[in-house]
Amino acid sequence: MKKKEKGQLIVLSGPSGVGKSTVIAELLGQRKNIYFSVSYTTRSPRVGEQDGVNYNFVDRAEFERMIAEEELLEYAEYVHNYYGTSLKVIRDKLEEGTDVLLDIEVQGAAKVRQRCPDALFIFIIPPSFEELSRRLHNRNTDSEEVIAGRLEKARLEAREIVHYNYLVINDKVSNAVSEIEAILTAAECRVENREKIYKGVFSL
Amino acid sequence: MKKKEKGQLIVLSGPSGVGKSTVIAELLGQRKNIYFSVSYTTRSPRVGEQDGVNYNFVDRAEFERMIAEEELLEYAEYVHNYYGTSLKVIRDKLEEGTDVLLDIEVQGAAKVRQRCPDALFIFIIPPSFEELSRRLHNRNTDSEEVIAGRLEKARLEAREIVHYNYLVINDKVSNAVSEIEAILTAAECRVENREKIYKGVFSL
Repeated sequence: MKKKEKGQLIVLSGPSGVGKSTVIAELLGQRKNIYFSVSYTTRSPRVGEQDGVNYNFVDRAEFERMIAEEELLEYAEYVHNYYGTSLKVIRDKLEEGTDVLLDIEVQGAAKVRQRCPDALFIFIIPPSFEELSRRLHNRNTDSEEVIAGRLEKARLEAREIVHYNYLVINDKVSNAVSEIEAILTAAECRVENREKIYKGVFSL
Repeated sequence: MKKKEKGQLIVLSGPSGVGKSTVIAELLGQRKNIYFSVSYTTRSPRVGEQDGVNYNFVDRAEFERMIAEEELLEYAEYVHNYYGTSLKVIRDKLEEGTDVLLDIEVQGAAKVRQRCPDALFIFIIPPSFEELSRRLHNRNTDSEEVIAGRLEKARLEAREIVHYNYLVINDKVSNAVSEIEAILTAAECRVENREKIYKGVFSL
């Protein structure tokens, strides 16, 4: 794939348990020229999660310093923990023509929407609510109480889907990845992203 | 693929010689649930073209009757011949959830844009102007004078690309088809086209 003039900012949201991490890992494996922006969080790593890969795990004091020094594109508090996105790397990547993928929840996405209305907003949902509950239980990482909280939160967050551009259904990881790939390819084909090409061909 | 509630109207334009017919034939072979709306024209069939497949070939008197009786979604005169799109079938197909593909030039597309702003407007270009000239010559169907007219027309029409949603480059048929497929899949993933799905999942 040729380098583009400017990268596309992609915001991916979806309820806890929908399988975002798996979808993202698959997508990054298949599609070059995407930089996954690792979020910062104050929550504890789950079994198997690595610092700098799944999240940059920091303590509350460090996170609050980043807020104070305006190092974050967006941040939000979610189930008593901070989650946020660092600005600096993102800007550089977009400028050099690399797409940047953000995995953030709806509050953070709303803030990015204000600052970057040209970003692509994609929301991932499970095929059914029962399936979401099943996936959260199968993860074996959360208590019943935490799972109940996540499910309630999922229903509340779904009201924000209307503000997203695209809805992807994660019934099977390969289907969800194909849909996201199509969305990214379509975005590259937008007339405004190919102005130089057609002006060149027709000497306009 | 599941039937959708409502079909998507897709308008495909591009200069004569860009290879639209080949791209369309390939696309229709690969993607189900698209109805290709065969245009009406008063021009003579080229070698290999079939009535009712490539175009519905009619005489000027019949075309002018269709204009008078408002049977056309759009029509235009192009290099001294009429080209137009019949309304009735399109409406039925969209209502039953089938996508409808129109192959029309820029004047006709502009009229469809006024009447159906939600249609998807895709413009196909060659990889270079020289390649377009080469393809027109290789077709062996037109005189030098007609080819010169087509090339001039292509340059003029390219000024209208800005009014389209997507630009597809037909360097290789398979690439152009993949891009169009991605555009159609992305359109299906638009939040507004999946409202019933997410409202169902989250009981909204």
